[in-house]
Amino acid sequence: MEKREMKGSGVWVVLVLFVLVEWVVSKKGGDDDGVKIWPMPASVSYGHKNVYMSKDFQLKTEGTNYNDASSILKDGFFRFLDVVKLAHVVDGDFSKFDASTILQGLNVVILSQNDELQYGVDESYKLSVPYPQNPAFAHLEAQTVYGALHGLQTFSQLCNFNFSSRVVEVYKTPWTITDQPRFSFRGLLIDTSRHYQPLPVIKKVIDSMAYAKLNVLHWHIVDTQSFPLEIPSYPKLWDGAYSIQERYTVADAAEIVRQVIYLLYAQTRGINVLAELDVPGHALSWGIGYPFLWPSKDCQQPLDVSNEFSFKVIDGILSDFSKIFKFKFVHLGGDEVNTTCSVPGLGEGNRLGAGRGCWTLTPRVSKWLKKHGMNESEAYQYFVLRAQEIALSHGYEIVNWEETFNDFGDKLNPKTVVHNWLGGGVAEKVVAAGLRCIVSNQDKWYLDHLDALWPDFYMNEPLTNITNPKQQKLVIGGEVCMWGETVDASDIEQTIWPRAAAAAERLWTPYDNLAKDPRQVFGRLKHFRCLLNKRGVAAAPLTGLGRSAPMEPGSCYSQ
Amino acid sequence: MEKREMKGSGVWVVLVLFVLVEWVVSKKGGDDDGVKIWPMPASVSYGHKNVYMSKDFQLKTEGTNYNDASSILKDGFFRFLDVVKLAHVVDGDFSKFDASTILQGLNVVILSQNDELQYGVDESYKLSVPYPQNPAFAHLEAQTVYGALHGLQTFSQLCNFNFSSRVVEVYKTPWTITDQPRFSFRGLLIDTSRHYQPLPVIKKVIDSMAYAKLNVLHWHIVDTQSFPLEIPSYPKLWDGAYSIQERYTVADAAEIVRQVIYLLYAQTRGINVLAELDVPGHALSWGIGYPFLWPSKDCQQPLDVSNEFSFKVIDGILSDFSKIFKFKFVHLGGDEVNTTCSVPGLGEGNRLGAGRGCWTLTPRVSKWLKKHGMNESEAYQYFVLRAQEIALSHGYEIVNWEETFNDFGDKLNPKTVVHNWLGGGVAEKVVAAGLRCIVSNQDKWYLDHLDALWPDFYMNEPLTNITNPKQQKLVIGGEVCMWGETVDASDIEQTIWPRAAAAAERLWTPYDNLAKDPRQVFGRLKHFRCLLNKRGVAAAPLTGLGRSAPMEPGSCYSQ
Repeated sequence: MEKREMKGSGVWVVLVLFVLVEWVVSKKGGDDDGVKIWPMPASVSYGHKNVYMSKDFQLKTEGTNYNDASSILKDGFFRFLDVVKLAHVVDGDFSKFDASTILQGLNVVILSQNDELQYGVDESYKLSVPYPQNPAFAHLEAQTVYGALHGLQTFSQLCNFNFSSRVVEVYKTPWTITDQPRFSFRGLLIDTSRHYQPLPVIKKVIDSMAYAKLNVLHWHIVDTQSFPLEIPSYPKLWDGAYSIQERYTVADAAEIVRQVIYLLYAQTRGINVLAELDVPGHALSWGIGYPFLWPSKDCQQPLDVSNEFSFKVIDGILSDFSKIFKFKFVHLGGDEVNTTCSVPGLGEGNRLGAGRGCWTLTPRVSKWLKKHGMNESEAYQYFVLRAQEIALSHGYEIVNWEETFNDFGDKLNPKTVVHNWLGGGVAEKVVAAGLRCIVSNQDKWYLDHLDALWPDFYMNEPLTNITNPKQQKLVIGGEVCMWGETVDASDIEQTIWPRAAAAAERLWTPYDNLAKDPRQVFGRLKHFRCLLNKRGVAAAPLTGLGRSAPMEPGSCYSQ
Repeated sequence: MEKREMKGSGVWVVLVLFVLVEWVVSKKGGDDDGVKIWPMPASVSYGHKNVYMSKDFQLKTEGTNYNDASSILKDGFFRFLDVVKLAHVVDGDFSKFDASTILQGLNVVILSQNDELQYGVDESYKLSVPYPQNPAFAHLEAQTVYGALHGLQTFSQLCNFNFSSRVVEVYKTPWTITDQPRFSFRGLLIDTSRHYQPLPVIKKVIDSMAYAKLNVLHWHIVDTQSFPLEIPSYPKLWDGAYSIQERYTVADAAEIVRQVIYLLYAQTRGINVLAELDVPGHALSWGIGYPFLWPSKDCQQPLDVSNEFSFKVIDGILSDFSKIFKFKFVHLGGDEVNTTCSVPGLGEGNRLGAGRGCWTLTPRVSKWLKKHGMNESEAYQYFVLRAQEIALSHGYEIVNWEETFNDFGDKLNPKTVVHNWLGGGVAEKVVAAGLRCIVSNQDKWYLDHLDALWPDFYMNEPLTNITNPKQQKLVIGGEVCMWGETVDASDIEQTIWPRAAAAAERLWTPYDNLAKDPRQVFGRLKHFRCLLNKRGVAAAPLTGLGRSAPMEPGSCYSQ
């Protein structure tokens, strides 16, 4: 048994392992030597012996404090079993095996009885897989069921179909893995306004997020182009959907969250849903059902700041949101609002249609601005802060895109998390101002930028230039963004994967264990991409731009 | 109730309907007016009334002759229920409905007790959905369970989530649909040699084939680049796989076929599997495990014609095939074999690596040719015909690519089906010679040709220039080909769909009901593409080249 303590002993050992992995992959095209776990756990040790999963691999919970009333653990365990048996038919003859090489099951001990999924929940776990003596059980211990789910994901990556014995093997036992995430917010944005994404597609994205230990689905539900979600308080809002079919009922939204929330608490895949209501720009579609929300028929956004109805509707929407979306945060957007109209089109940015200074161009609104002694820039601030107050009144903390910070950071509610996107260097300013930050700089972490390659995703460090430990803690994590302009049900998976996985390791793995040169993880990431393929996820080759087709015939492990 | 008899009354009515459908789609972006079934059935009449599927929608089989011992019908019925409930949460309050608008279930009558799936099985069905009176059942009658499965697919396309009542509705009742396919062979080729396709990916392709009523999966298993399948008789053949992981065990192959064959008979999705063993070219990978199959180490294909071992291995493979692949036909390839080496590289075509005249270049083989008085061309014929004999000895009829016909058509066994691919105009020659033909001309029906657009797929008529009814019957159907050079698990679905669906209507729908101008079916095909998306199939937009990403934000129904 080799013991390679990865935590603390640092970069050298990591490099040796990565080089070993790469070497094996080059040599055998995906052999199972070396540590192939993605994202790499905080601490790993392993041995040399392969063992086999019993035909009747059992879940035991001896010594646990957790009653699993909502069946989160049990469901997770059955998903684990499904996923390790998916790629090949398991039809080995167990009577031929030495009993001492058979792993009978997994004992899971969960210390906390509480299974409310929320920001900051303990996600740590400790997994050990012994080289068995009869009867032998692997052991998984976690503070919460969500840590245990991560442990099951890691365990699934230690399993592999063995083509000689025709059963699932656990390679390189004994394993001892101690793990926890570096950041508590590890997000993926999806955008259902630019293209509607059917329910089965969103559910599959959630499944694949769990494989990479991402934990926040940022659902950019509505925008300029369409308003697909039912809002019972204002039932004409979804008149702004692309078509009658391309809509989500409240029950549909709850069903998506139910992948997560069960009876308001238990979240079966450990993934939070951060709902976004982007105001006052990016909201043109709202006015299809309620034209009063537009400054005028000819000038349709930002939302009319002069009309109390705008805030009433926001209040109604957030009230309805609060019944479905139980995550601590709501995202209020606030990006790309044109506050001057000296240069037509300025401020529309690359997401289109956030307004052309409609407020000063529309007489009614312009009059209101004068009456209240505001210019457009001040009115923008007024709108954002008032929306923040409404969100706070519904019990939410707030996420806003970085323009709000750049323009009036000192006025933002202290419960604001600033969501970076324009470029690098923002997080350090945000945390210096005492606010929290989520990193999504578009040059590295926008998945719709097809020329942002996986090494860009891997190397993007959220704590760049932030050395003060207190300030470091204010960077709660990061998020990769799958904007929907050119993404629909036909291409969302391969545009997300495998690049999102590169960011997922950055967000999960301790800094000292991260590769300093992305080439060191190339083989292991290729392996993870092939693993996603084996599970039916359409992850694209690593070579080429984002979502590129393979260029020529070849092994998954070489592309 | 309108009654529009589509069979016989011909083109005019079809055009009216298509124009109507297109008009509705343009107007409402995917509204449910008009006939939206794909492929269009032989005869359709419908009314004006919507009815709702009961919460406990039942399967009844009163009056059937079929005992469903293998559960093909029951499984198909549950898949039908799943698929119509997939897109949205069904949570309507049934207590509010008038009982007379509730459809209680479906009664299925199957006349034949035989459920062996085989070439030429009766696939007809008759479906009627009444405007109900309490208790009301829809009625499906079919000669075989495979016709009934097609009826369920059609029925699923009459169902739609109703956003007002929050239940599944059947629109435009009463329906009377009488249907049967125009061609009995409606194929899709997949290629697991250029890229390995994991099991879950192949299974999903099979699921989606059933949606479009395709009925033959042509599995091009091995080729020059890799040999992924286990062959027990020659266990080193799969040493030619890309990697240890990228292989199919016999049990895996049987599992794929099991989607089809259950206890050698029942084929749960009504789809046959046509296995291909391409000889003597396209076989380089065989020699990784058995180098004696190569003419020499430096000149590795075609398979060595001078060595009895080549035919022994083919016999072993076909013997093993016959235990898994129960379809009447086996595909023996025979394409792109270079029979001269006067021009280096000639004859390799676009599939690469089919040989460079290795037979005359290799002294041992060249000597054998002289001894037997054959030139390379005659040796090619000798090889193909001998492989045919081996296949016949295992009970198979044979499919060969068209070069075999072009070069020595009069020598082919009368049980040969000639598989066209090089271009148009071949089928007429084949059937004039009295042989059967499958049409796959590459300019129109090769899915890897990304510049072959859906109208090309739709308009490609297998019976072009064939007017003699006897000869028409010899064209058993057609096949769209998804060659794997640039297709792996990340892009196979959107490269196949929706273009394969355009061909599927050509192969299913009576000639007189087909649109003469593809624009007439544009709206209905967009609708079918969106339906695939709703079912989680990554079908690409119709605009743009094959597998193109959507160009800009917009509704699925407009792209």
